[in-house]
Amino acid sequence: MTTLVFGHKSPDTDSTGSPIIWAWYLNEIKGQSAKPVLLGEPNTEAAFVLKRWNLDKPEIVSEVAADTPVVIVDTNNPAELPTGINDCDITAIIDHHKLVGGLETKGPIDIRIEPLACTATIMWKMIGKDMAQMPKDVKGAMLSCILSDTLEFRSPTTTQEDKAIAYDLAKDLDVDISAYAAEMFEAKSDVSAFSDAELLRMDSKEYEVDGKQFRVSVLETTAPQILIDRKDSLMASMPGVAAEDGADQVLLFVIDILNEEATLLVPNDLVKTVAEKSFDATVKGDTVVLPGIMSRKKQIIPNLKV
Amino acid sequence: MTTLVFGHKSPDTDSTGSPIIWAWYLNEIKGQSAKPVLLGEPNTEAAFVLKRWNLDKPEIVSEVAADTPVVIVDTNNPAELPTGINDCDITAIIDHHKLVGGLETKGPIDIRIEPLACTATIMWKMIGKDMAQMPKDVKGAMLSCILSDTLEFRSPTTTQEDKAIAYDLAKDLDVDISAYAAEMFEAKSDVSAFSDAELLRMDSKEYEVDGKQFRVSVLETTAPQILIDRKDSLMASMPGVAAEDGADQVLLFVIDILNEEATLLVPNDLVKTVAEKSFDATVKGDTVVLPGIMSRKKQIIPNLKV
Repeated sequence: MTTLVFGHKSPDTDSTGSPIIWAWYLNEIKGQSAKPVLLGEPNTEAAFVLKRWNLDKPEIVSEVAADTPVVIVDTNNPAELPTGINDCDITAIIDHHKLVGGLETKGPIDIRIEPLACTATIMWKMIGKDMAQMPKDVKGAMLSCILSDTLEFRSPTTTQEDKAIAYDLAKDLDVDISAYAAEMFEAKSDVSAFSDAELLRMDSKEYEVDGKQFRVSVLETTAPQILIDRKDSLMASMPGVAAEDGADQVLLFVIDILNEEATLLVPNDLVKTVAEKSFDATVKGDTVVLPGIMSRKKQIIPNLKV
Repeated sequence: MTTLVFGHKSPDTDSTGSPIIWAWYLNEIKGQSAKPVLLGEPNTEAAFVLKRWNLDKPEIVSEVAADTPVVIVDTNNPAELPTGINDCDITAIIDHHKLVGGLETKGPIDIRIEPLACTATIMWKMIGKDMAQMPKDVKGAMLSCILSDTLEFRSPTTTQEDKAIAYDLAKDLDVDISAYAAEMFEAKSDVSAFSDAELLRMDSKEYEVDGKQFRVSVLETTAPQILIDRKDSLMASMPGVAAEDGADQVLLFVIDILNEEATLLVPNDLVKTVAEKSFDATVKGDTVVLPGIMSRKKQIIPNLKV
């Protein structure tokens, strides 16, 4: 039976590239039958990466039948996975997020979670000497995952290992990291095709603070002004998105990759309080700039207070 | 702050030896401050191993203060760990059991779970070339963990890796595996000091089948007759132990290490049904022999039916 390899819903570059990397490894090195799939349309950066490296876009699935062998990458959160994930035959988990609790397996399996910036970095370590056999297109996906998750090493999640491996891959592929990362971020910044609700859900994680359910959304961009110009309609869409998704409030952080700062939209007093208590910010008006804030995982989620 | 390294409650050899191994690694190789502790009195085999290798018996603790840095080994099950474990600063998990769900971490951490017979085998792989610096007493603990968890390679959980590493260690330590394993199992088989209730809880895991809560207990021994001779009082103690521990029924499997079979005590019709449905056994009287059954993880838990 073919093993399906997938990352989280609303796939970004790491959740699109890592399944391709691991399915290659299982098929070509381990002699197993594996297939990368996506749990939704890849974001614009991930779509650019697939095209740049001539990789086939993996099939998009929304459900996975019980007992299907699956490898989960780039998440361990049941909320970001298909309903009934625990009825699948989970054969491995490779991830770099905090342990959320909730995934269960029927027997002992391979689980590898490390505090690195990117799933692909962990895979590089696990693949080891077999990296020599990896074709250029898959290596291109690997490099792209690292540059995406580290925001070209600007994110405080970046480790020496992520960086060293990215430089190694770039040299091998003869890629200029800065020029290529700029192309990736430009692709990610092209949000013209998306509705406000789609933008609020594009890169979003649910998180509870003191009984309040937040949808913590980030939009990483090199063109923040385009999003800030849409702030009125984005804020107008927040109550509807929150209600539909069972949250109390959407928090939208526009991450300015080049200037290394975030702008939080402030539609009401609840979010104003969050900004003041969590980031020691002085809020005037309906946006607030948070200097140095780049990472939801390291800087936003651990500091959220209401 | 010193990191505490511990395994599960009711520590067996792997949950006693693995904390010693990993604390050595953190202290001597990683330059961190770490201390092995136990969540209860080690079983008779583990006590023998400590003495045989002149290892200090780790301190026994029952509670761990919030925010204490901890490494959890040989389990990922909150029920087998101190209350409030999720309030500790869990910095790593190294285990070889199925993912139970329930442990949560505040940030991304190192988690390494592999389907090998023994935690110490995974540690051997993680320590890698630094194994050269490990002193003989710690290597002795490592060998003991593998021989204990594999029942000297008889258990179906045994992998080629467990076996290869054990032979490697035994050669290095100049230990005759069969003679040493026989000493270990003899120590484990000396149950004279324990009450019936202590025996029922000595090596026990909670498991639910179709709404019924079982305490699935195994006693691995080279002298099964001693236990079978105590069957009447063991069965008489089951209802009290089950009630105190919130279970519906205790299942006690006496594992005959040398003859590679289990004897299940059958105190009532519920257990009779379990024996018949799970193991295709024909039950006459209050015990039933299950040929080839050695492993709770691989052969008992996955097959339990009511």
